[in-house]
Amino acid sequence: MAGTDHRRESLAGGPVIVLVRPQLGENIGAAARAMMNFGLGELRLVAPRDPFPNRQATAMASGATAILDAARLFATTEEAVADLHLVLATTARERAIRKHANDPAEAAAKLRGAIAGGARAGILFGPERAGLANEDIALAREIVAIPANPAFASLNLAQAVLILGYEWHRGEAPAAPPAAEPPASTAELVGFFEHLEGALDRAGFLKPPEKRPSMVQNLRALFQRAALSGQEVRTLRGVVSAFERLAGREPGVD
Amino acid sequence: MAGTDHRRESLAGGPVIVLVRPQLGENIGAAARAMMNFGLGELRLVAPRDPFPNRQATAMASGATAILDAARLFATTEEAVADLHLVLATTARERAIRKHANDPAEAAAKLRGAIAGGARAGILFGPERAGLANEDIALAREIVAIPANPAFASLNLAQAVLILGYEWHRGEAPAAPPAAEPPASTAELVGFFEHLEGALDRAGFLKPPEKRPSMVQNLRALFQRAALSGQEVRTLRGVVSAFERLAGREPGVD
Repeated sequence: MAGTDHRRESLAGGPVIVLVRPQLGENIGAAARAMMNFGLGELRLVAPRDPFPNRQATAMASGATAILDAARLFATTEEAVADLHLVLATTARERAIRKHANDPAEAAAKLRGAIAGGARAGILFGPERAGLANEDIALAREIVAIPANPAFASLNLAQAVLILGYEWHRGEAPAAPPAAEPPASTAELVGFFEHLEGALDRAGFLKPPEKRPSMVQNLRALFQRAALSGQEVRTLRGVVSAFERLAGREPGVD
Repeated sequence: MAGTDHRRESLAGGPVIVLVRPQLGENIGAAARAMMNFGLGELRLVAPRDPFPNRQATAMASGATAILDAARLFATTEEAVADLHLVLATTARERAIRKHANDPAEAAAKLRGAIAGGARAGILFGPERAGLANEDIALAREIVAIPANPAFASLNLAQAVLILGYEWHRGEAPAAPPAAEPPASTAELVGFFEHLEGALDRAGFLKPPEKRPSMVQNLRALFQRAALSGQEVRTLRGVVSAFERLAGREPGVD
């Protein structure tokens, strides 16, 4: 999907994304892009397999390299989360560990609540194949699991970051803007209805007479559902007038 | 994130995923994987740039090749959605067209409601760089926009499919009750649009020629918003025919 504008959105203030022992530079870069898509700016890497920074990560992050540039490296998960107050661990597997498993929307709500209360928060993501080790999960207060097709639950690393980022941003997003065009007034609507119905009477369409009321109601109902703007009502009146001119029942102007 | 078990989840019954003029085989394969992750099985491709099937798509789909094998190819978007009753179009750009813009959760709820009521539904995704053309969007009843960082809103094709799939899978309970009347199929709608537009061309309404495309899109958008039933489409075609008979351009029957 295309489309970007240049209004700024702060990348500060969201949860820290912590990638634990990531294997492929490409996935680190793609995770940075996913963070940027949803306004998350702070990336931490625990013992990446390949030296970091690396070319693959930078190539894949195009447009989000500032996030890679600011990423911090840690030797252990424990060090990476030391300053955080609320840590959630992502996992797709059922675990023996007894921790509350949140879906991404619940997780995002808890992160927002914690951050609003002044806490620092983060989300742990495990290595591509193995997922997080139990020792990593033990550092987290709760688990996040992305509900998926049980026969094919394996999301790649950047996709998991994308979905958590999406849920984080969704709760943060301002409400939808108002419709662009002013709606038609009832008087404008009724003017159009009467214009249309008069033309249809002349065209012999609203017959037989006993059916006219229900036909008129059904037509009005479908146009009501469209929540027409004033401009659209004028367009529709133009349509009716064009047909009337074609029929020679109204003086033409073109 | 790792983790898969082998409980089955049906891939039938969800919305159709329609990729319009996709460019890269890799993205088609990744979209198939994202569909499989979230239990969506039916893929349609409109005029893919490269011959399909292709090696890149198959390699990227690993584990979801059954979805590619069953994918159907179409020459035009119109043919691809002809049998669908509720079509939503994804877009990241703000559009001049007046259609309701859903976030993915609203979109998923509407799709569930429509499908629970017996309708067939689908989601259109545009080509990687350009997004959907206005003519494609005119075939959809409403828009879906993924809220994202306005300074970096560009999601790739498979990521957009992933997020819509995630929202589809997330909702469990079927929402809204079925509509009272069976909805019109897209083919029925397009039949009405073309009938109306042909009549308006003969009436000299869709002028000057350079304005015709936007006039047609605006008219289609307002009728899409009305969520017409099959019966209402027949009524509106009757309205157009009545005007044409009045003008003596079509043999009358009464």
